[in-house]
Amino acid sequence: MKRRDVRAVILAGGRGTRFWPLGRAAKPKQFLRIAGPDPMLLETVRRIRPLIPARKTTLIADARQTSQARKLLPRLPKECFLVEPEARNTAPALMLATARVWLENPEAVVVVLPADHLICDVAAFLKRLEAAVEAAARESALVTFGIPPTSPATGYGYIRHNRGAGRKIAGTVFYPALGFKEKPDAVRAAEYIAAGDHAWNSGMFLWRAGVFAQKLELFAPELRPGWTAIVAALRSGGATKLKSAFRLVPAVSIDYALMEKADGVLVADGDFGWSDVGAWSTLAGVWPRDGAGNASRGETLALDASGCVVWNPGRLTALVGVRDLIVVEAGDALLICDAGSDQKVKDVVEALKRTPKFKRYI
Amino acid sequence: MKRRDVRAVILAGGRGTRFWPLGRAAKPKQFLRIAGPDPMLLETVRRIRPLIPARKTTLIADARQTSQARKLLPRLPKECFLVEPEARNTAPALMLATARVWLENPEAVVVVLPADHLICDVAAFLKRLEAAVEAAARESALVTFGIPPTSPATGYGYIRHNRGAGRKIAGTVFYPALGFKEKPDAVRAAEYIAAGDHAWNSGMFLWRAGVFAQKLELFAPELRPGWTAIVAALRSGGATKLKSAFRLVPAVSIDYALMEKADGVLVADGDFGWSDVGAWSTLAGVWPRDGAGNASRGETLALDASGCVVWNPGRLTALVGVRDLIVVEAGDALLICDAGSDQKVKDVVEALKRTPKFKRYI
Repeated sequence: MKRRDVRAVILAGGRGTRFWPLGRAAKPKQFLRIAGPDPMLLETVRRIRPLIPARKTTLIADARQTSQARKLLPRLPKECFLVEPEARNTAPALMLATARVWLENPEAVVVVLPADHLICDVAAFLKRLEAAVEAAARESALVTFGIPPTSPATGYGYIRHNRGAGRKIAGTVFYPALGFKEKPDAVRAAEYIAAGDHAWNSGMFLWRAGVFAQKLELFAPELRPGWTAIVAALRSGGATKLKSAFRLVPAVSIDYALMEKADGVLVADGDFGWSDVGAWSTLAGVWPRDGAGNASRGETLALDASGCVVWNPGRLTALVGVRDLIVVEAGDALLICDAGSDQKVKDVVEALKRTPKFKRYI
Repeated sequence: MKRRDVRAVILAGGRGTRFWPLGRAAKPKQFLRIAGPDPMLLETVRRIRPLIPARKTTLIADARQTSQARKLLPRLPKECFLVEPEARNTAPALMLATARVWLENPEAVVVVLPADHLICDVAAFLKRLEAAVEAAARESALVTFGIPPTSPATGYGYIRHNRGAGRKIAGTVFYPALGFKEKPDAVRAAEYIAAGDHAWNSGMFLWRAGVFAQKLELFAPELRPGWTAIVAALRSGGATKLKSAFRLVPAVSIDYALMEKADGVLVADGDFGWSDVGAWSTLAGVWPRDGAGNASRGETLALDASGCVVWNPGRLTALVGVRDLIVVEAGDALLICDAGSDQKVKDVVEALKRTPKFKRYI
């Protein structure tokens, strides 16, 4: 296999309030040690190390998150951190990161990875990633992973793809994408699953920098002024110029701005134990469980208790006669939440914002 | 009303594991600030102050609990603390405390009060107590309060009394007791409530010291050797002698050993907002509640949550989509318990005892 110039772009700017009270405004999910022993951002960078050297890794985030990320990765050169002029969703961020690569080498393959996803089978992931790099390099395609769905989830976007037209590249089958779908309602999600040709949108993308520029030119005319301005700003090196250029890009996701509009998108199965760790209850499937299905960080004593997820490291939690609870002890704040209601944790944060005396808990 | 020599004997030796993890082996219920702003023992001593001066108050408990009680009541003279040679239930403790009073003044009225009960209407309590002192002094009777039952509880003993034969003494009606009943099963408890002449046994008793000695002589022959030996030991002042004398008394409750055997027992209604605060869920009826029936110490944010009791002072607790939970954050240990299962909290302590690594949480 040819030695490729591969660059990682890690989206490190997630905000998220769904892991309150452990996650705070100043410490979003990618900085939490919830999935492994280290913060998710650190695990994301380490995971790709066998394929992509540290110096070819770029972390893109706003100024505050970048400063946190630098503390976490003190040996990474300064050039690896790219500060977004402002948080404007993924399209502007990925245009900026890709433009920087494009100016250096349009043939380089960009691998876009969210900083806050969990991948359980790293060997399988690296194998698929290597193949996806080949596909992006050889096929002049935008490439993505579709997660084989395990339920009709309404919290993910879906990618429809043609499973009859798969082609093997470097040992992995790639399918032509037929369409990107926004987060569906429950009825539609059930239809997607029944159809058998829909996968969850993983938010991981690969492209040659030059292919990205080309697809953008062909399929996303509303991105063109921003792209041109960003490239010009990078060439001249002015921060103010870059900020203005950045603002020319609509604040939308790259899925919406480019992926769902472009032709020639290829999808490979993301069959490597992926989880976006979207809320506390997902950790029930990640942490080891006791015989009654309780998953915990910290010692737990369960008497007639089952299905609970407990974060209380270094302390004892006794569960008595309770079912399917999320319990999170975070020092100054404690969350007790029905597992089926854990999407409401963000409502807690909204309620805190409305109550002056509670603002310090955000 | 005649000026009486009234002595309080406060049973300060309760052990109890039902308030774990706040209550520990080294800090039982009477030392917890769960019912009012101060530990229950302190509130018990303060409550009777208008009727009984501090120097006429005796706290009886084992050596460790006595040392804790002395820290809590540093201005109380040393003589007010009576150390039980060992914990042997209430009969030996009350014989010792009463014998000490008897040697000083057989006419003195002894008021026996548990240190870990809550009384909401202190004015009503003091009025009843004053009348009960009169009844004990004038009638040569053993006197007690029967709590008007609000449910067919199986956790209390009951006192049957003749409500047709009440006599007013000092403004309060006293009824002749017809029998003390052990904690009943649910069927029997329902019968007691339906009958209308059963009250909960409050564990509060009054007697003249000389009357106690007399009733013991007449109705409790198995207590006589212990009484004689305790009196002799107190006269001679020897600690070893007292210890031996104490051991001559069967380790049973005074209810069982004397009250249910003696004649002439009088019962007044304990209609003063009494609670024995028997478990965490009883605090739902003691602490202020929010509109959804959540009672808490510490700030609480409840989203679609009701009927919870939360102990987490100085911190924020968020409750989301949960019902009828007990939540207790006690620093090194956290309890999450179904409110209907709070009698199982003592099983948690038993389980901790069986697990070496958890012993430090007992």
